[in-house]
Amino acid sequence: MKITVIGSVAAGTSAAAKARRNTESADITIFEKGMDISYSSCGLPYFVSDVISERRLLTPRDVAFFKERYNIDVMIGHEVLKILPDEKQLEVKSLATMQVFRQPYDRLVIATGANPIIPPIEGIKAGNVFPIRGVESADRLKQFIHQNKPKQGVIIGSGFIGVEMAENLVSLGIETTIIEKAGQVMPSLDSDVAIWVEKHLKEKGVKVILSDGLASLESNDGAVYEVVTESGRRSHTDFVILSIGVRPNVELARAAGVEIGETGAIKVDKHLRTNIEDIYAAGDCAESYSRITGRPVYLPLGSTANKMGRIAGQNMTGEQEEYKGVLGTSICKVFDLTVGQTGMTESQAKKLGVKVETVHNIKPNQQTYFPGGSDLLIKAVAEKQTGKMLGAQVVGMRGVDKRVDVFATGISLGIKVNEWFQIDLAYAPPYSTTKDPVTYTGMILTNELERGIALITPDEVEQEIEQGRPLTLVDVREPDQYAAGHLPGSLNIPLAVLRQRLGELNPDIEMVTYCNSGTSGNAAQNILLNHGFKSVRNLSGGYKNWKTLKR
Amino acid sequence: MKITVIGSVAAGTSAAAKARRNTESADITIFEKGMDISYSSCGLPYFVSDVISERRLLTPRDVAFFKERYNIDVMIGHEVLKILPDEKQLEVKSLATMQVFRQPYDRLVIATGANPIIPPIEGIKAGNVFPIRGVESADRLKQFIHQNKPKQGVIIGSGFIGVEMAENLVSLGIETTIIEKAGQVMPSLDSDVAIWVEKHLKEKGVKVILSDGLASLESNDGAVYEVVTESGRRSHTDFVILSIGVRPNVELARAAGVEIGETGAIKVDKHLRTNIEDIYAAGDCAESYSRITGRPVYLPLGSTANKMGRIAGQNMTGEQEEYKGVLGTSICKVFDLTVGQTGMTESQAKKLGVKVETVHNIKPNQQTYFPGGSDLLIKAVAEKQTGKMLGAQVVGMRGVDKRVDVFATGISLGIKVNEWFQIDLAYAPPYSTTKDPVTYTGMILTNELERGIALITPDEVEQEIEQGRPLTLVDVREPDQYAAGHLPGSLNIPLAVLRQRLGELNPDIEMVTYCNSGTSGNAAQNILLNHGFKSVRNLSGGYKNWKTLKR
Repeated sequence: MKITVIGSVAAGTSAAAKARRNTESADITIFEKGMDISYSSCGLPYFVSDVISERRLLTPRDVAFFKERYNIDVMIGHEVLKILPDEKQLEVKSLATMQVFRQPYDRLVIATGANPIIPPIEGIKAGNVFPIRGVESADRLKQFIHQNKPKQGVIIGSGFIGVEMAENLVSLGIETTIIEKAGQVMPSLDSDVAIWVEKHLKEKGVKVILSDGLASLESNDGAVYEVVTESGRRSHTDFVILSIGVRPNVELARAAGVEIGETGAIKVDKHLRTNIEDIYAAGDCAESYSRITGRPVYLPLGSTANKMGRIAGQNMTGEQEEYKGVLGTSICKVFDLTVGQTGMTESQAKKLGVKVETVHNIKPNQQTYFPGGSDLLIKAVAEKQTGKMLGAQVVGMRGVDKRVDVFATGISLGIKVNEWFQIDLAYAPPYSTTKDPVTYTGMILTNELERGIALITPDEVEQEIEQGRPLTLVDVREPDQYAAGHLPGSLNIPLAVLRQRLGELNPDIEMVTYCNSGTSGNAAQNILLNHGFKSVRNLSGGYKNWKTLKR
Repeated sequence: MKITVIGSVAAGTSAAAKARRNTESADITIFEKGMDISYSSCGLPYFVSDVISERRLLTPRDVAFFKERYNIDVMIGHEVLKILPDEKQLEVKSLATMQVFRQPYDRLVIATGANPIIPPIEGIKAGNVFPIRGVESADRLKQFIHQNKPKQGVIIGSGFIGVEMAENLVSLGIETTIIEKAGQVMPSLDSDVAIWVEKHLKEKGVKVILSDGLASLESNDGAVYEVVTESGRRSHTDFVILSIGVRPNVELARAAGVEIGETGAIKVDKHLRTNIEDIYAAGDCAESYSRITGRPVYLPLGSTANKMGRIAGQNMTGEQEEYKGVLGTSICKVFDLTVGQTGMTESQAKKLGVKVETVHNIKPNQQTYFPGGSDLLIKAVAEKQTGKMLGAQVVGMRGVDKRVDVFATGISLGIKVNEWFQIDLAYAPPYSTTKDPVTYTGMILTNELERGIALITPDEVEQEIEQGRPLTLVDVREPDQYAAGHLPGSLNIPLAVLRQRLGELNPDIEMVTYCNSGTSGNAAQNILLNHGFKSVRNLSGGYKNWKTLKR
């Protein structure tokens, strides 16, 4: 049996290696247009700044490795020109000799990956404009920085690569500007989470321009010196990094009659088969599935590519493995912050018409008396009708990756919000609080969904006040905290004296309680509800959340 | 309604606070014999060494806090002498006035906690012998250290408190010895995991004496100067810390006719009711349930006490909440290591007669090219018949808590080993590897259970060789690694040349493959199996694991 793979990054090499582990009798060949194989895209921003100093660390596996370990032939510098499904052959060109030859296959895996989106504007091909994709693009940027010692850089796009590049440029002493067309950084997050990241980027000296797309690049002698946005803003710069996303590389597949899905990537079934017999697709060129909705999604992530490749390799060699889809779990270091997400955001839920409850839970990542802790913000989303957890976004300095993975595990297994309280997580002062922030998140959502202990977001407070709805805002913090800053129009009745001062409040008017991050606000809310107040909502994430969002 | 609680640490205060959140109309009273309430036991070792410098950080909540926030009366310095269930009254003594009075109750929560086990030997009551339980015991030890500047200390028992105390004594410059009756440190772990902790303790200068219990304490003028073990070994010391475990404090309950379970703690049903109507029990004085087996277990942990208290509070006030039991998840910092466990160990499974497969998976916690990573050892246990994950133990420098909590979440939700591969965990170089160590653990166990890709432990290799079973041991590492150390009698055939040198091996003899930590050994195993070798097992955890266990 001849197994042939097009593409040698995460999905292609995973498929080939899995096939080999299953059988010694197949001939396995991978064709790769470039010269680097199985490299780590996610390491590129750190390579540019020398956090990762050696290039070989990003490309630990070479042709010899695959031959020796897996008896797989990786043909680098070989471009596949055509897939000929009727003949079960490929037309391949050696870029070294320019010879074109035919390669037969019994099973084919298309793992052609994705290409960076490059807007067709003037100046975009200048020598100091760097789309980041593949080790060679990072080599170019790194070399440019070493040779030219640039003082200023502009990054177009604020996804993972964009914000990671920002950190690494700043660490090189480069004055850095991010330009983002959306109204927030990291558009995969909800805007009320992204704002915490934006704030941190600014604290670290990054200039952040939002709601403003790239319009043109002014250049001189083949070098861009100014970036012009759609609103006409001009930013002087010594170079430009393009990180506005990627597009699946599907032309080869499309030309062969392989069906392209609604997301623009190659359509595959749960066995990662395309519409053409014996042709599989995996990784950044193919569609994935949402584990929650079952719908096709396009999520070009290394961890997903790796899984898909392995499942394709499994199914190609006679085993049966069904792809269950992904949650789009992702994580990113942004200076001292870590930002992670899994499953659905509130804005995705709204687009899909799913009715959700949300919470903003601000809690320390570990016992506050143990040195080194800091606050986490968890925004969690649950389905109203079923009580199922749908997603979580987590931002903080420490312990973010843990909470994201715990949520991802629970959500993958269909957890309901009321199950979290009895998940037995590990507690010791350096690692957690007696009840983990994840546990609290489940408890708050359970109270909301099952017991009517409602929350109100900072945005909703503002909207309701604007609409003239009569609301009593009760700040239950101590007078000095209130004096240092509070919601406009709020009363200050500290929790400790709330029971004595109940008479000052009209139980028929809707109440909003709040404290610093939500816990005392909830205690006050319980007191008022248990004393017969009709409507009492607690401010989600408390004053800390309100202050960040209403800066 | 009068709700009365005996005991004011984790379970008692949780029960009372939950009851108050549910209703404003109950009178809630907590009786506490001591003077500290709601303190954090888990912080005590760090308080002794001034990592936590201020006492008030461990006791952040006082009587006023509970009165103001929850309208709960905490009566410190009040000892409950008797429970009178027929009259629904308590007999209470004020330790300040020595007055005895009756306190009626409608619902009672027994949360009397546990007491340290103090062996009845001579010298045990000396002024420099310190059982660690409660803030006052830590005050005494801390004061002793400040006044006497001891040079040497002996810790009896190597559970969590014992090893945490060792770290904190060493950080104070005290020469520290741990004496443990069991044949390993941290007896809640499997011995082949505990050995990694033992090695680390020794590297940090702690003297570890195993398989040797405390026999007597030699004292002079009321101060112990020498510890004598059962084997007659004598250790000179300036003080002794006793941390050989705790015993549930059940005398009050027993005297009132409350049923005591097989574990020696108070028997409760899933609603945390005792056998006597309107009497609940929670926390370290009560039995818990194993979430896996449903059997009663005694697990005196703060996180468990907290959960049980809340569930008791919930059920006492008319809500329905069933306690689902715990996995015994726990975690502990031991110098630079973190050690965590959840669910069943192999030795627990053996005791219960459950047939299991295990794996020792040694993997980096994050991308090796990103600075700051280190290896994790994961030992995981799965049920042979069902493929269910039963437990995991994790040891390493970084990312241990994450993996423990991810395992705990999966196991709580009944995950099977073959489900891990498709759990969508977060990947970026600073946080994980493309496939997380948890993912690999699931994959290895799946291969073992479903595809016959068998593992063999270092102990089993040794046993089989001793029994004269013909085994070919194949070291598939590079010759320089082999030369630096290998299993006695093993052949060296590097993976890269294995296919060419297959002829040197007899496919009818049982093979054991190994590499450094297991991955290449597995690749070699696949090659041999796919070439028709009858029996090929891969060494669990590879040479690294073998070397540690066979030191």
